[in-house]
Amino acid sequence: MSKGDTTRHAILERATGLATKMGLGGLTIGGLAEELDLSKSGLFAHFQSKEALQIQVLEYGAAVFVADVVRPALAAPRGAPRLRALFEQWLAWGRSRMPAGCLFVAAATELDDRPGPVRDRLVTLQRQWLDVIAISVRKGIDAGQLRADADAEQFAHDLYGVMLAYHHASRLLRDAGAERRAQRAFETLLAAITPPAPR
Amino acid sequence: MSKGDTTRHAILERATGLATKMGLGGLTIGGLAEELDLSKSGLFAHFQSKEALQIQVLEYGAAVFVADVVRPALAAPRGAPRLRALFEQWLAWGRSRMPAGCLFVAAATELDDRPGPVRDRLVTLQRQWLDVIAISVRKGIDAGQLRADADAEQFAHDLYGVMLAYHHASRLLRDAGAERRAQRAFETLLAAITPPAPR
Repeated sequence: MSKGDTTRHAILERATGLATKMGLGGLTIGGLAEELDLSKSGLFAHFQSKEALQIQVLEYGAAVFVADVVRPALAAPRGAPRLRALFEQWLAWGRSRMPAGCLFVAAATELDDRPGPVRDRLVTLQRQWLDVIAISVRKGIDAGQLRADADAEQFAHDLYGVMLAYHHASRLLRDAGAERRAQRAFETLLAAITPPAPR
Repeated sequence: MSKGDTTRHAILERATGLATKMGLGGLTIGGLAEELDLSKSGLFAHFQSKEALQIQVLEYGAAVFVADVVRPALAAPRGAPRLRALFEQWLAWGRSRMPAGCLFVAAATELDDRPGPVRDRLVTLQRQWLDVIAISVRKGIDAGQLRADADAEQFAHDLYGVMLAYHHASRLLRDAGAERRAQRAFETLLAAITPPAPR
């Protein structure tokens, strides 16, 4: 990485933390400059506008998610092992990278009724992630590892619900059993698309 | 209702709309006074503080939810019919009462890391609702309508996830199939705790 890239990376890391705490809407170039003790004009040179900064925070978060969750999970064998790897890496990512709550979950309720380029980018990123899950299901079906009648999009949608419920139970309710519940919900979803074991 | 109650009711109705749009944190007595063209001192007489106003908005929303969703659903026969009624009324409530998004879903991500009496009240209300679902499952088990090994708390948790996924798909992704997906996810959850039909 060049020096410029390293700086940009460090700034986006801090900006992501701020956005998770205050919402993407609370993230301004002025506020970030103050937090980082950098000049506002220097940050403007990096990001041009508040919206561009917000979009780059989303893209930075998505790039980390792909590196930490998607890429390692896609190395697992097709079918149930790959879906389980996606789920496990996703949980681990929340614990290690988003201890203060998930940027994307927070942004989803914050932006759902705020049309514009930031919302558009979030929707695209969320659809891409749902697609990764659905494609993983479809590849498992093609390989004969998962039931031929499994609905890949429904599985992706339901798995997203499992993670949202986990987030709600662990973050809001401080439910010590949140992760165990998420595991059980995942196993139920997976069992429903797994062919019965040969006897 | 007395005149004072009618006024309070009308104010809380508008305040709920505002809180859904701007977040509970954006709801101030000053802002509400401006919106309603009322005097700030008059509103202070009703609500005393910003926090008290926010708590009363949550309680007002919960009271409407009990009247519109919980009470009619609990009139349905025990077991699957009652769980289906809870789910259907919940969906209908979102469509009719929360067309701009759900106050509770928005408050959950907004308040999860903001300790204080408003968060505490939200947690209590959410737990009460999860308890209503879990108790409905347990009564269905006791009546022999649902599987004896059904996990009532897990069902409540999972059903909450179904609604969060529905909210995400309909509000953020504008997925026209969101309600159909929620219906399917609900039927899968229900089938898992329903005893096989006698042959």
